[in-house]
Amino acid sequence: MASMDPMTSTATQAPRSGPVTRKDVARYAGVSTAVVSYVVNGGPKRVAPATEAKVQDAIRVLGYRPNAAARALKLGSSETLGLIIPDITNPFFSLFAHAVEDAAAALGYALVLSNSDGNVARERNNVRNLAARQVDGVLLASVLFEPDLASLETADIPSVLLNQERDAPGFNSIGVDLAAGARMAVEHLIGHGHTNIGLAMGTNVSGSKDGREQGWRDALRDAGLREGPITYSEFDRSGGYVAGQRLLASVNRPTAIFASSDMQAIGILRAVREAGLDVPGDIALACFDGSVESEYSWPPLTTVVQPVTAMAEAAVASLVGAGRGEPPRHRLFATELKVRQSCGCP
Amino acid sequence: MASMDPMTSTATQAPRSGPVTRKDVARYAGVSTAVVSYVVNGGPKRVAPATEAKVQDAIRVLGYRPNAAARALKLGSSETLGLIIPDITNPFFSLFAHAVEDAAAALGYALVLSNSDGNVARERNNVRNLAARQVDGVLLASVLFEPDLASLETADIPSVLLNQERDAPGFNSIGVDLAAGARMAVEHLIGHGHTNIGLAMGTNVSGSKDGREQGWRDALRDAGLREGPITYSEFDRSGGYVAGQRLLASVNRPTAIFASSDMQAIGILRAVREAGLDVPGDIALACFDGSVESEYSWPPLTTVVQPVTAMAEAAVASLVGAGRGEPPRHRLFATELKVRQSCGCP
Repeated sequence: MASMDPMTSTATQAPRSGPVTRKDVARYAGVSTAVVSYVVNGGPKRVAPATEAKVQDAIRVLGYRPNAAARALKLGSSETLGLIIPDITNPFFSLFAHAVEDAAAALGYALVLSNSDGNVARERNNVRNLAARQVDGVLLASVLFEPDLASLETADIPSVLLNQERDAPGFNSIGVDLAAGARMAVEHLIGHGHTNIGLAMGTNVSGSKDGREQGWRDALRDAGLREGPITYSEFDRSGGYVAGQRLLASVNRPTAIFASSDMQAIGILRAVREAGLDVPGDIALACFDGSVESEYSWPPLTTVVQPVTAMAEAAVASLVGAGRGEPPRHRLFATELKVRQSCGCP
Repeated sequence: MASMDPMTSTATQAPRSGPVTRKDVARYAGVSTAVVSYVVNGGPKRVAPATEAKVQDAIRVLGYRPNAAARALKLGSSETLGLIIPDITNPFFSLFAHAVEDAAAALGYALVLSNSDGNVARERNNVRNLAARQVDGVLLASVLFEPDLASLETADIPSVLLNQERDAPGFNSIGVDLAAGARMAVEHLIGHGHTNIGLAMGTNVSGSKDGREQGWRDALRDAGLREGPITYSEFDRSGGYVAGQRLLASVNRPTAIFASSDMQAIGILRAVREAGLDVPGDIALACFDGSVESEYSWPPLTTVVQPVTAMAEAAVASLVGAGRGEPPRHRLFATELKVRQSCGCP
């Protein structure tokens, strides 16, 4: 009976002196070694289903193990990029991660994802982990303005910082003009006749000033308006909820709020409704990011949209595409104001 | 001047006959080879900052390249898991992906993420790509009930199907009892006095029946109620929006709706408001998943919560943890009803 089993019969038919090679598989299946490669690597060329079945059968019968590690050793590349973000459950970062995966896949790279949870120690560990894995490049949305990338530099792995609003000398980075985007949103609220505009500002670990705060100040100053109340809290929904409660309780209650993220605005919407008030009737609202959640809230949010796909493509290209090997530089992207109803527009 | 540069001086001080090894680094830095490993791999033991700086310096000066590919070849493992989901921007999957990354990291595995965009061909390509990369295991939220995993089997890579509500013979899988969860939600709506309860059902590529539809039917039948109207649309926000519009336009307009995902419910909320109606006053609503968005909508959604963390941990353990090497089996998880306000509760 045992001789009926192809796995066993192989051993008697073809006693092997070394490991099974791609050539052995090609000979057994009656195809070229290139076709075996296409089947094993899922491309680059398509293989007819019947031919693929023959190759898969040969692989099974001969016990061939295509060796990715051997391939990586030969190529000097793992054909992998690493992405470190604070939290994939933040819709802005999930959108970004999807765009990065698409851009990486288009160039033949897989994506290793890790979350730092906004924690400096965890981020540092993630960076070192990716360095140890010898990925071909790292995309990092850091909690710091100038993160420690020594382990990547030591391993000669290029990196690009995401979400950077300005040049950090020596770092390769991309980001949007936060101040210009915020200014645009606040000017829109001013255009609706508001003279007391509050700011719900997200906080970061590094404590460095964020351009969104500057943009808010600039827009008010240039319009000859006094600064409304400010709150500082987390960038997420619960941070916005707290910010909304505080701004509503302030002695000088604003009639409009600019929130530094869509998530904060979602939290503010909740606080406003719990207070029995209406957006935009009692409190007009504009925010920043342009995630899909901003479209489906009630009312839909007027928000500053970040060009996520373009940024993801540029970041990936700077590591393993057209920009590979170029000196580090900062790439600044423009934002667009998406006008919906939370600002008071019909 | 050149001799002042450590990179250059090394070449003259220590002409090499082979590649720089970990031992060379250890000798230069005056530490053990174990300490060099800890620095290169970011653990498992902590290294004092001063010692780490010495090691990093030695690595730079000697031009040492720790080789992950060589390590993988030696270990016979890439210490990587692959995760394929339809879309990371779906909050349920981003929550799941984060939980999987945590569970994988706890066991020393990195996570390669890929999106299928609900497309069978892309999913198949992702599976083959991960097989070619020789990951140590694959977690797959497939668009099919019985996906083609031949390339993984050929490469001897274990897999686990996510989001499976029942046993698919020969497959390792996890999932929740969709029918029981849906029944719980619909019974809750019945408890609020509703007798005409509609269903917004998400559709899948495979076209197989979903337990959520059965649970809805069972609850109505057991309560002696007639089935309300049904719509079939995408599981996402826009699918829910369309479902909401259709259900509101049906001749037999329901007073309550059970939606098969939180995302659909978000879309339904929009359709209800655009129709000038109120949730839960005119239309009560309950849904399925338990993503964070369900908590911050207005009103907050009553939803069936999936135990995401427990499922992610079980899935990872079945591949590279305690359950490794066990015969394929199905693991069924229970859900919980999270009662908020969309159902009519205060």
